Amino acid sequence: MAGSASYSVDPWSLEENGLDVENMARSESLFALSNGHIGLRGNLDEGEPHGLPGSYLNSVHELRPLPYAEAGYGYPESGQTVINVTNGKLIRLMVDDEPLDVRYGELRAHRRKIDFRDGVLVREAEWESPAGQVVRVVSRRIVSFSQRAVAAICYEVEPITDATRVVVQSELVANETLPVRTGDPRAAAVLESPLVPELHIARDTSVGLVHVTRHSQIRVAVAMDHVIDGPGALGVFSESEANSGRVTVTGVLKPGQKLRIVKFVAYGWSKQRSLPAMRDQAAAALVAAKETGWEGLLAEQRAYLDAFWKRADVEVDGDAEVQQAVRFALFHVLQAGARAERRAIPAKGLTGPGYDGHAFWDTETYVLPVLTYTSPSAAADALRWRQSTLELAQERAQLLNLRGAAFPWRTINGEECSGYWPAGTAAFHVNADIADAVARYVNVTEDYEFERTVGLELLVETARLWRSLGHHDLDGRFRIDGVTGPDEYSAIADNNVYTNLMAQKNLRAAAEAAKRHPDRAHEFGVNAEETASWRDAAEDMYIPFDKHLGVHPQSDGFTGHEIWDFAKTRPEQYPLLLHFPYFDLYRKQVVKQADIVLAMQRRGDAFTHEQKLRNFAYYEGLTVRDSSLSAAPQGVLAAECGHLALAHAYLREAALMDLRDIARNTGDGLHMASLAGSWIALVEGFGGLRDHGKVLRFAPRLSEGLSRLAFGLCVRGRHLRIEVTGETATYTILEGGSITLQHHGESFRLEPDKPATLDIPHISPPERPHQPAGREPHFFRPPSAPEPA
Amino acid sequence: MAGSASYSVDPWSLEENGLDVENMARSESLFALSNGHIGLRGNLDEGEPHGLPGSYLNSVHELRPLPYAEAGYGYPESGQTVINVTNGKLIRLMVDDEPLDVRYGELRAHRRKIDFRDGVLVREAEWESPAGQVVRVVSRRIVSFSQRAVAAICYEVEPITDATRVVVQSELVANETLPVRTGDPRAAAVLESPLVPELHIARDTSVGLVHVTRHSQIRVAVAMDHVIDGPGALGVFSESEANSGRVTVTGVLKPGQKLRIVKFVAYGWSKQRSLPAMRDQAAAALVAAKETGWEGLLAEQRAYLDAFWKRADVEVDGDAEVQQAVRFALFHVLQAGARAERRAIPAKGLTGPGYDGHAFWDTETYVLPVLTYTSPSAAADALRWRQSTLELAQERAQLLNLRGAAFPWRTINGEECSGYWPAGTAAFHVNADIADAVARYVNVTEDYEFERTVGLELLVETARLWRSLGHHDLDGRFRIDGVTGPDEYSAIADNNVYTNLMAQKNLRAAAEAAKRHPDRAHEFGVNAEETASWRDAAEDMYIPFDKHLGVHPQSDGFTGHEIWDFAKTRPEQYPLLLHFPYFDLYRKQVVKQADIVLAMQRRGDAFTHEQKLRNFAYYEGLTVRDSSLSAAPQGVLAAECGHLALAHAYLREAALMDLRDIARNTGDGLHMASLAGSWIALVEGFGGLRDHGKVLRFAPRLSEGLSRLAFGLCVRGRHLRIEVTGETATYTILEGGSITLQHHGESFRLEPDKPATLDIPHISPPERPHQPAGREPHFFRPPSAPEPA
Repeated sequence: MAGSASYSVDPWSLEENGLDVENMARSESLFALSNGHIGLRGNLDEGEPHGLPGSYLNSVHELRPLPYAEAGYGYPESGQTVINVTNGKLIRLMVDDEPLDVRYGELRAHRRKIDFRDGVLVREAEWESPAGQVVRVVSRRIVSFSQRAVAAICYEVEPITDATRVVVQSELVANETLPVRTGDPRAAAVLESPLVPELHIARDTSVGLVHVTRHSQIRVAVAMDHVIDGPGALGVFSESEANSGRVTVTGVLKPGQKLRIVKFVAYGWSKQRSLPAMRDQAAAALVAAKETGWEGLLAEQRAYLDAFWKRADVEVDGDAEVQQAVRFALFHVLQAGARAERRAIPAKGLTGPGYDGHAFWDTETYVLPVLTYTSPSAAADALRWRQSTLELAQERAQLLNLRGAAFPWRTINGEECSGYWPAGTAAFHVNADIADAVARYVNVTEDYEFERTVGLELLVETARLWRSLGHHDLDGRFRIDGVTGPDEYSAIADNNVYTNLMAQKNLRAAAEAAKRHPDRAHEFGVNAEETASWRDAAEDMYIPFDKHLGVHPQSDGFTGHEIWDFAKTRPEQYPLLLHFPYFDLYRKQVVKQADIVLAMQRRGDAFTHEQKLRNFAYYEGLTVRDSSLSAAPQGVLAAECGHLALAHAYLREAALMDLRDIARNTGDGLHMASLAGSWIALVEGFGGLRDHGKVLRFAPRLSEGLSRLAFGLCVRGRHLRIEVTGETATYTILEGGSITLQHHGESFRLEPDKPATLDIPHISPPERPHQPAGREPHFFRPPSAPEPA
Repeated sequence: MAGSASYSVDPWSLEENGLDVENMARSESLFALSNGHIGLRGNLDEGEPHGLPGSYLNSVHELRPLPYAEAGYGYPESGQTVINVTNGKLIRLMVDDEPLDVRYGELRAHRRKIDFRDGVLVREAEWESPAGQVVRVVSRRIVSFSQRAVAAICYEVEPITDATRVVVQSELVANETLPVRTGDPRAAAVLESPLVPELHIARDTSVGLVHVTRHSQIRVAVAMDHVIDGPGALGVFSESEANSGRVTVTGVLKPGQKLRIVKFVAYGWSKQRSLPAMRDQAAAALVAAKETGWEGLLAEQRAYLDAFWKRADVEVDGDAEVQQAVRFALFHVLQAGARAERRAIPAKGLTGPGYDGHAFWDTETYVLPVLTYTSPSAAADALRWRQSTLELAQERAQLLNLRGAAFPWRTINGEECSGYWPAGTAAFHVNADIADAVARYVNVTEDYEFERTVGLELLVETARLWRSLGHHDLDGRFRIDGVTGPDEYSAIADNNVYTNLMAQKNLRAAAEAAKRHPDRAHEFGVNAEETASWRDAAEDMYIPFDKHLGVHPQSDGFTGHEIWDFAKTRPEQYPLLLHFPYFDLYRKQVVKQADIVLAMQRRGDAFTHEQKLRNFAYYEGLTVRDSSLSAAPQGVLAAECGHLALAHAYLREAALMDLRDIARNTGDGLHMASLAGSWIALVEGFGGLRDHGKVLRFAPRLSEGLSRLAFGLCVRGRHLRIEVTGETATYTILEGGSITLQHHGESFRLEPDKPATLDIPHISPPERPHQPAGREPHFFRPPSAPEPA
């Protein structure tokens, strides 16, 4: 049994049958539970075997020195890395003399399943011990959306063949030994024993532990309590020591008898609060959870998810894998953002330690668009987190000889943690990405109170950054030199088109928001001269164009560079960054990930249709997609350019990134941006949603492989639902008043209770663009040949 | 006495009067002795006080890990750092009860002097012990040019006032404790106890120690022996332990009586040879030295230097400081290169641990031109060292996805040790600089046997590098993208003019040399197709030019960048690299050091006079000279452009860099390139020497401040001497046959015994260019105003 696993393709759940002990880390990421505040990897109840044990608390990190072979001014000296906190998931089982360990005895059945509608991870195992005893274990685990400090596990064991003495140990374990990670720079640094014990208490069925991180000085309190239900006289006792606590339950079960233990776990953490305060905080959360009870928590979880799916569900007919994947994706994006509440949403959510638990620009560019349309308050909270780090960003800007705010390339707490400045500090577009997320949130929600209290300040300080970062040249053009755009196979170039266009939008958005809130703008020292200088810089923004080739160079001079020798590059030499020096990559025409293509998505208003067609075709030939951030924007632009089969392939690649472990690093955590990208590829791609202007635009058009697409959007207090088939699109208001929308360039007024069904104009399929040799999208299925005459 | 020091301005020596105990490191560098094989800093005989104790053996280094906050493919993992080897300079003195230590008692007189004609460091001290005993100590120290493994010290002590018991301890000490260095990235890493003891022996007046470096596994043997001469019964005994050895001499001296100890020290080191072999090697060198004797060594030293000055001396009338400085410079350049013999010539020679003892491109670009014209065999040896590292350079090229050889940016043994690739790996011009040095050496010496056995291979492999590094674009231009030129305030730019012009010369030189040695070229796999491709690439080499401004941009797009805000930059913010991030520097028009200006010096044939004038003026306004490599080329071009007072100022800055400690880091070692630069500024600047073509060209013209300049050159087996005054230049052949030269554009044939005196054409002084605010050259003296009418 142990040794192989298969995953179901089901519209509403992910189910694993069997257990692949060699590849545990992947399933641990797929089955991770989180509410954005707590994250528990899908480790087995009994802890071992594991790929990577993981329990994370949003923002709990340790510091590590960032070393440099040659130091330089302004290099960050201290990095942050997410830590594996006290493991509250552990429930070990002794069956007579034998500990349940799937590597011994025989695992007769093993099934794990997460249903996206109830948010419960269910595990069913039937195990025969080396001594021949057979037990059945069913555990159900949740991380509560409604009670954000709480996780709970319902653990049931029953013997199948004989009467059996069972000993169940429910544990808390701090400072677990972690496997040594590979040399892959995308993995996390491993810190040994980051938690210094401060307190341990055990009483009756409960245990509490308090630790503090050694350098970052974050206090972490964990408490657990239990409700135990079983036949006969059960022995129950608890104990604790510095780095562990245990509640032990023992009894003899006959076949047909069940021991059921509900474990409630509560976490609290703070950089400020005292030891007694933290101990009590965890204890209080525990009392509330126990009072709600297991069934109560399940009901709350279901209600939370029901509301989410009602407004956000995406239905896909014609591609069952994509149907499952997009719900899997929405579920995980929700898990990452739901209760993050003014803390960062990391690139891996709280599903694994990849990228050291850092948040990057892709939170704003990929995850927040999805949350803005499906859980707008979570999007607002994520931007409030950025605002809470503004002072650090202002200090960073000063250090860099700039004005305004320079947000970090990668961070947990707001401080820059990038140890390689050409792809860190120089990637200033993160600031425009934040501003773009602000502008989108305000445009989509019309939440002007948010704009007034949060958004404006972010817009102003990022606009100031751009104004000081760029300059007018002798021809009056506003240039932004020496920066790095989204594509990480180029760096430190002049006038990156994506960056300049996003900065342009940032400058304009700041000027407009300042006009809407003149009193607040005045508080920030903004005057008419300054907003005029923003508008002028935006107006004069230099966007390079290669007239010779008729395409936009990604940055000044890009199209003059040598084209990467794709023919000579062997398949095992991808991702290129692990086999070629940056020196070589930066100076040639080879694109890791959508850059111009992302610009055409997010600033589609700045390109003609002809330019989009030409640019898309040109950059398809250069883009190797060594980044999971690339498939979604390529899918969106492929759809816009009419390459519908290609768009479908990119959609599938984005959607299946983790479910199929395409990048072979799902074990380090899920790719939140790629998950979000599956929604983006569907809604912005085949739905053709664009929010450049006040009026939302749709240009839906399905690929041959899809027969129907339906999705929900939260727009300006309304719930809209859009259903697309091969021929028509139907727009419906589920909640709220009438609204003006655009369908394939035509505005129309949509009224409540009056769905509008509009035709989709036909297009003739354009010439298929070509990707670099061997870098065609995964899962490409060419359009079917026309019927023979 | 201790507390202040003054330096003489003398044409043939450097003399220090007094002793500045707070700034010992500087004088230790100035008074360092070396023959290129052994280097001894000018530490006091008694070891303390010191700035930085230092004994170096060329190429003896230890390894240290190069750490990266974020690793990348192709980053060097191991660095090399020069180590302070066993100190053989130590001679301690006990005067009755008191050790001679200038910090105690009273230093009544202290004088150190090095005469560049005899190469002996003389120290005279008169010291009154705290107990009131007065002694006079005279020590003379040499590092032998003739016996490259040998240093010797003649130490004399005599009491002045009373009969005194003296104890002299002559020592060898390994693993000296070094002061912790500052955070300045230009200083060296400090390694604790790098030497592992292997053997120690003491017998009669001699001691030997053998150690091996811990990681680099280089075996170092040191041996000393003594000749002792003094009144009465002297006690003499020797002892040794793992990390030290000592010969102690004791006796009672009356006033007028002297104890004289001649200490001979021999070093040997090898990565290959066994312990007994190394022990014997040092012992053998010691026997030879003792046999020669102190006076014999002095005579050999004098003879070696006589020959050098005869061919190489530079006479300067009108500026006594420059006269001293240029001889000081030539002496130290000779010391660095004389007997390096197929080992590197580091940026600091063997005078200090700065830059970790690494050699950079400036050896080829600054030091080798001087050696080529003054000690051609030393220049040839330095290039033979490069050839000996060719295999490592070929491996590095392969790693970088390139052909040919990629020589390291910084190294001791030939492996790349740069831990910051934008200013390391990307600075490919080092390869063209090596090729240029080869081409110059062959052109100036006509040593075609060297070209055949050494030069050709270097030219071929570097040409192959350029051919694979560049590419033809759609317009047929040969471009070299994404590289870093000499200016370290820019990086990773396309078509750096210096790099492209030097690569062009490299490609042509390789093709020409291959034609001269077709059989050898065939051995290297060179065929006609390949040489044609080199010639084509050279022919098509793209040199960007800004038509709008009428100047060459340093690299593509440079002149469009924002100009650095010099007005706002405070004096204490220089050097900029310590106060601003590279990010900020790279993207703006600010130049650390001559780049285009260096291109106009080394490839003056590629620019019109008008372009030189305009470029020089433009880049003067941007160049801050945060590098000691800048003043000399700026001086040369200033002279060529007719800015003679400015040229004089730059000459002075280059010449006085260390004597006045302008960069405040002379304590880490002397700036060999700047020392060489003083010769360059005189000979290429005011002498107007250019060697672009077969015929050497001169265009001499003195500044107002100089009344006469004379210099010697070794050219094609001849010794030439050129004497320049305000009105004329006189060319003389001191040795060898007739030669064709050019004077201010006119060719003439110079015959032996027939000096030619030619007029210097007048020019009207051009408009004075301006430097950035506060960055005018040190020592600028504007031309005197015209006499009032």
